[in-house]
Order: sequence, then C-alpha cells, then structure tokens
Amino acid sequence: MKISELAETTGVPVATLKFYLREGVLAPGRALSRTQAEYDHDHVERVRLVRALADVGGLSIASIRRVLEVISEPGLGPADIMGAAQRAFLGADVTPDEGGELAGSPARDLFARMGWHVRPGNPALDDLDRAWAACLESGLGLDEDRMEKYAAAMLDVAAVDIGSAPADPTAAVRHVVLGTPLVDAVLVPLRRLAQQHTALDAHGSQ
Amino acid sequence: MKISELAETTGVPVATLKFYLREGVLAPGRALSRTQAEYDHDHVERVRLVRALADVGGLSIASIRRVLEVISEPGLGPADIMGAAQRAFLGADVTPDEGGELAGSPARDLFARMGWHVRPGNPALDDLDRAWAACLESGLGLDEDRMEKYAAAMLDVAAVDIGSAPADPTAAVRHVVLGTPLVDAVLVPLRRLAQQHTALDAHGSQ
Repeated sequence: MKISELAETTGVPVATLKFYLREGVLAPGRALSRTQAEYDHDHVERVRLVRALADVGGLSIASIRRVLEVISEPGLGPADIMGAAQRAFLGADVTPDEGGELAGSPARDLFARMGWHVRPGNPALDDLDRAWAACLESGLGLDEDRMEKYAAAMLDVAAVDIGSAPADPTAAVRHVVLGTPLVDAVLVPLRRLAQQHTALDAHGSQ
Repeated sequence: MKISELAETTGVPVATLKFYLREGVLAPGRALSRTQAEYDHDHVERVRLVRALADVGGLSIASIRRVLEVISEPGLGPADIMGAAQRAFLGADVTPDEGGELAGSPARDLFARMGWHVRPGNPALDDLDRAWAACLESGLGLDEDRMEKYAAAMLDVAAVDIGSAPADPTAAVRHVVLGTPLVDAVLVPLRRLAQQHTALDAHGSQ
C-alpha cells in the first residue's frame, strides 16, 4: 500500500508517518521509485504499536525508540527479559549483573528490610523516593507499614504481568514493555472504581 | 510575611504565586496597604498542597481548584467523602444517589458480573474502557480473567487508601483527594520494582 493508504488504514496522518520514518520508529517502505514506497501489514502493526505507546503509555519518541530496539533484539534469554524491558521504559541500564548494596535511601532501606530482589541502580527506586517524599510533604502520613501494603498489592499485579507473558522471549519482552505503560493506564481507573466500591460497600448505599 | 518571603519559604517564584492568586487557588493575604499583603502559615501550607497536586498529581489549575473546593466544604458526612473526592479529580459528577443500570460497555459489564458497587456514570469506567481497548489493539491479550486479577489487587490498594483515612470528614476528603494522584505516583515505580523482584526471584539471580 502507499503511504496515503497506510495513513487511512491506521488513522494516523501522513505528516505523522513521515515524522515516524525520520525518527526511525517506523522502517522505510520498499522503494518503488524515488518518491514512492510500498508499505505492508508489518508497517500497520508497527504504527499501531507506536500510537499505543505514545497515546496510552505517554512515552516520548526517544522512549518509543528504545522500546522498539528491545523488541527487535534477537535471542534474548528469559532472565534478560525483565531487565531489557525495564531498561526500555526507565531509560537507564538495569542490567542483571549489576551489584552493590541496597541501601542509602528510604525506598532502598525499605526493600532491603523486606528482602526484595531489587537492583540498587534501578531508577524506579529514585522515582519511588521522590513520590514518597511528595506524599510526606503534603501531609499524607504514608508510613512504612502502609507502603509495605501497597508493595504487596503491586506484587500481585507483577505476578499477573509476568504470569501472562508468552513463553517466546521476544514476544515476552514485547508483552512486558508494552504491558507496563498500557496496564498502568488500566490500573489508575481500576483504583478509582475500587475506591468507590469500597466506600459504597462500607456505607451500605446502592 | 510578605509575598517575597512566601516565595522564599515555599521555593515557588513570586510570579507563580501571583498566578495562583489570580486563579483563586491561593487566598489573598491580609491587606496592609494597596500594594502589600501579609501571608501566614496557612498560605505556606496551601502553596505546598497546590505544588504537590500540580507536580506529582499532574493536575491542571482547574482540577486543583475543584480539589480545593472539596476540601473547604464544611460538614461532609462520611458517605459523601468518596463521591466528593472522586468528583474533584475525575472532573465530573459522581453523586451518591445516581441511579441507572451498570451495563453497556466492557468495563460496566465486567463490574456488573463481579457485583461491584460502581455508579454507571463514574467517568473512570470510560477511562478503563479506553485503556482496555488500547491494550487489546496493541495485541496485549488482556482478557477478563486477567482484568479481574488486576481489579482484586486494586481492591487491596483501595482498602489501604480508605483504611488509612482520618476519621474527621474534611480531613478524610483531603486525604483521599490528595492521596489518589500522589499515591498513583507511588504505585507506578512500586509495580516496576515488584516486576524486577518477581523476575529475579523466579530466575534465581542475585
């Protein structure tokens, strides 16, 4: 199909498709002439993936490029999947062989006490430290006991994330990389609805 | 204190404080003259709250104004708290007496089957429908079984959210309104860390 048909099929304007081509998140089509190229079903799938990561995951073009690089890596072993996936959307190296002690910040101290297998260099630890500090600054008494309960609930979420990943390593990376931001967008409204259910249930209305 | 001192104490520039005054999210100080006003500790607390909602919660000025209106409502009964809080950050009416049948979209059908007490007009249902559709479009096989497991985990989160709310109704609204976006920002990195822990645990590294 021509680029105009690719635009029609995906609902993404031609100008945006050309931007994706320039940014390298969409592979060039098969050249038919100096000005025309042929696109196929793989391009349609790729454009849909880029849109999902951008619109729902809220990822920047640079982050999308990293996600796509991970997905295209051949021969990943199962043990590398999570590191590769996390590297993609955390924008930093979270290599499986990274060492060091888990200590030196509230989040690190917490997970060390809880005995979690978390790399000290995982940037999510810094994100958590920042978000936790913001809660405390705002007068939300988010103590360690409450944080451990949230962590336990997220462990259930992670078990579903990983338990539902396909066996093929490349497909599994794609599943986790895609699923992490996309499912974040699912969990936020689920939490609102769970709050309403809990509140209405407790007060006996409806 | 003068507005320059309020800026120094909170770390928020005078121009931004003036913007907050114009937008009505910060109450005017006590007028000392035509050009000078006196600010106090309540103003400091309010500015910190506005910053937390904007920076961590990612709320717009309009949403922040709604949150602050909810917090200042006197004499809220415990049963109104969740509706008022959700109204604030969902930007829509989620009144406790709203009726109607829970049906007509994948999310509504799911919660009807699960027997959740969720108002059919709750805008989080539409958010969930959109996020769920985006997952399916991207080839993430997020079926109802997996969605129910995520919902169960979020029910644990909501129990912590609501269980940790103070008894005083106004303080409880503030707790939920503030805690919802601020704790979203905690749950995202917690999920990443839980994924790493689960993956490393399963593969026996570290």
